[in-house]
Amino acid sequence: MTTTMRDVAKAAGVSVATVSHVVNDKPGARIGEDARRRVQEAIIALGYRPNALAKTLSEGSSRFIGLVADAIATTPFAGQIIHGAQDEAWRHGFVLLVANTEGNAAAENDAIAMMLEHQVRGILYSTWYHREIEVPPPLQHTETVLVNCFAGDDSFPAVVPDEEQGGRTATEELLAVGHRRIAFLNTTTSSPARDRRLAGYRSALEEAGIAFDPALAFETAPDQEGGYAAVDGLLASGATGVFCHNDRVAMGVYDGLRERGLRIPDDMAVMGFDNQDVIAAHLRPPLSTVALPHYELGAAGVRTLLGLDAPAAGARQLVSCPTVLRESL
Amino acid sequence: MTTTMRDVAKAAGVSVATVSHVVNDKPGARIGEDARRRVQEAIIALGYRPNALAKTLSEGSSRFIGLVADAIATTPFAGQIIHGAQDEAWRHGFVLLVANTEGNAAAENDAIAMMLEHQVRGILYSTWYHREIEVPPPLQHTETVLVNCFAGDDSFPAVVPDEEQGGRTATEELLAVGHRRIAFLNTTTSSPARDRRLAGYRSALEEAGIAFDPALAFETAPDQEGGYAAVDGLLASGATGVFCHNDRVAMGVYDGLRERGLRIPDDMAVMGFDNQDVIAAHLRPPLSTVALPHYELGAAGVRTLLGLDAPAAGARQLVSCPTVLRESL
Repeated sequence: MTTTMRDVAKAAGVSVATVSHVVNDKPGARIGEDARRRVQEAIIALGYRPNALAKTLSEGSSRFIGLVADAIATTPFAGQIIHGAQDEAWRHGFVLLVANTEGNAAAENDAIAMMLEHQVRGILYSTWYHREIEVPPPLQHTETVLVNCFAGDDSFPAVVPDEEQGGRTATEELLAVGHRRIAFLNTTTSSPARDRRLAGYRSALEEAGIAFDPALAFETAPDQEGGYAAVDGLLASGATGVFCHNDRVAMGVYDGLRERGLRIPDDMAVMGFDNQDVIAAHLRPPLSTVALPHYELGAAGVRTLLGLDAPAAGARQLVSCPTVLRESL
Repeated sequence: MTTTMRDVAKAAGVSVATVSHVVNDKPGARIGEDARRRVQEAIIALGYRPNALAKTLSEGSSRFIGLVADAIATTPFAGQIIHGAQDEAWRHGFVLLVANTEGNAAAENDAIAMMLEHQVRGILYSTWYHREIEVPPPLQHTETVLVNCFAGDDSFPAVVPDEEQGGRTATEELLAVGHRRIAFLNTTTSSPARDRRLAGYRSALEEAGIAFDPALAFETAPDQEGGYAAVDGLLASGATGVFCHNDRVAMGVYDGLRERGLRIPDDMAVMGFDNQDVIAAHLRPPLSTVALPHYELGAAGVRTLLGLDAPAAGARQLVSCPTVLRESL
């Protein structure tokens, strides 16, 4: 049995309009203190719950924030974006409505249309890996914040990981334990991660007074197979430490080194990137790495959408990538 | 600029009530064919979009299905439950509203309350690993389907993986390539997966006329470290093949065997469970395993909620776990 506004009015001895005014906290509605108190008591006694939809209609926007994602919820990688966005949304009284569209443009347009019909406060548009996107047309006239992606012309506020700082930090950790000849197994895939992590690697070397040696900068497939295939070249380069584009590449390097009877970190120090669950902490030895700040990306996206963090004018808000040290250095 | 029903009425030369009747397709409303056509043309010309909330209010339930999950969206494991539920919901014109509560009871109750206020068609309640749950009190009087979990008294329709069939299938694959002395590295953690996979292992052996040998049934932590620690016992048991409780355990076994100079599958055949992304296909050699049917669990949950699949009376709907053969057998 649902308690209605009519039940509350009856119990409080007032009109339904009076209950409505109290529930919706209408400014300017003249309601006596006594009537207001009786309504509030009746609401509590009867467990009355105002219909959120009716409330939304009268207020013009709902307590929803939409999150439209390509594959965040379903790839075993960037789920913490949802976690961070959700926690931050809850904190401010919003429910996060997640639509994971698997890159299907029709599903994406439907999801956005439905969210707009439901008068969401705004939409976070997010991708499971950091990249430039074409912002879908229906978002052009909607309160939108891009998370883990950005528009080429920076015409939308965007929150992205600081890949360059991440690459610099990874390299600095190898420098800090005494390595001077440090290889970088970068990805063959064109992406902000490839370009900016390389820039970070170079700037850390430069800061340490070490000339960049192109013979130490490799490109390989960004997975275990790519890391494994790169081991011969890595050993031939004379490197004593290696910064891997991601933890999967590092896992392949582990396999390749082990097959050659080499030990980590004694024969080769290994640094990963991503701090990917189910891999990084569970390699032998556990992998030192740089974490992608997925949780913080989601939370910062919500704060920007709600106007709590001012968006950097025409630019991307960079979130830093923290180091996670284990035993591979 | 939002187009309102009033704009449509003006353009079509009819009353707002007439537009409302056309939009809501009210049976029994007498509207001339000509007026109806003019309204429809005006809707298209003006790009009018009926307010979904208003529509929901008049229909009494929304086009939302709620999915309340503990950590599905944020652990790198069961995200395909969301994918399956989402695809199936879309197929029937529903939007999946996901709330991932990280096991926080207060957040969970808030999420459920908000969903009920928004008049969802029903709620899928799901967990990231298969287990018995206490159904939260607010769900007692709501259209609810449990996904990847179940009530102890089977008082709710539930869709769960067929762990026993999975264990039987894994063992049968080892039998099929000629192994007779097959170890099982089960988990130390009490769960339906532990009990039912063991039952499946035993029934496959029995079917093959092989007596169950308790010396071949191990229990170890369900991760890489647990698999690695079990290798000495595994080798001492005289097993030639091993069924691992999950792919992470198998990954630890790989490391342990490799350190001892042993080869997979020649010295030991290895079968996993889960078909966990980022691990199973990328071990050396790639791991044969049994997949958890996460996508299908989500899809079947939605079908049961919408009454398209009749729930098995008072029992759990079992979804089978398919084999994924690679190179470790």
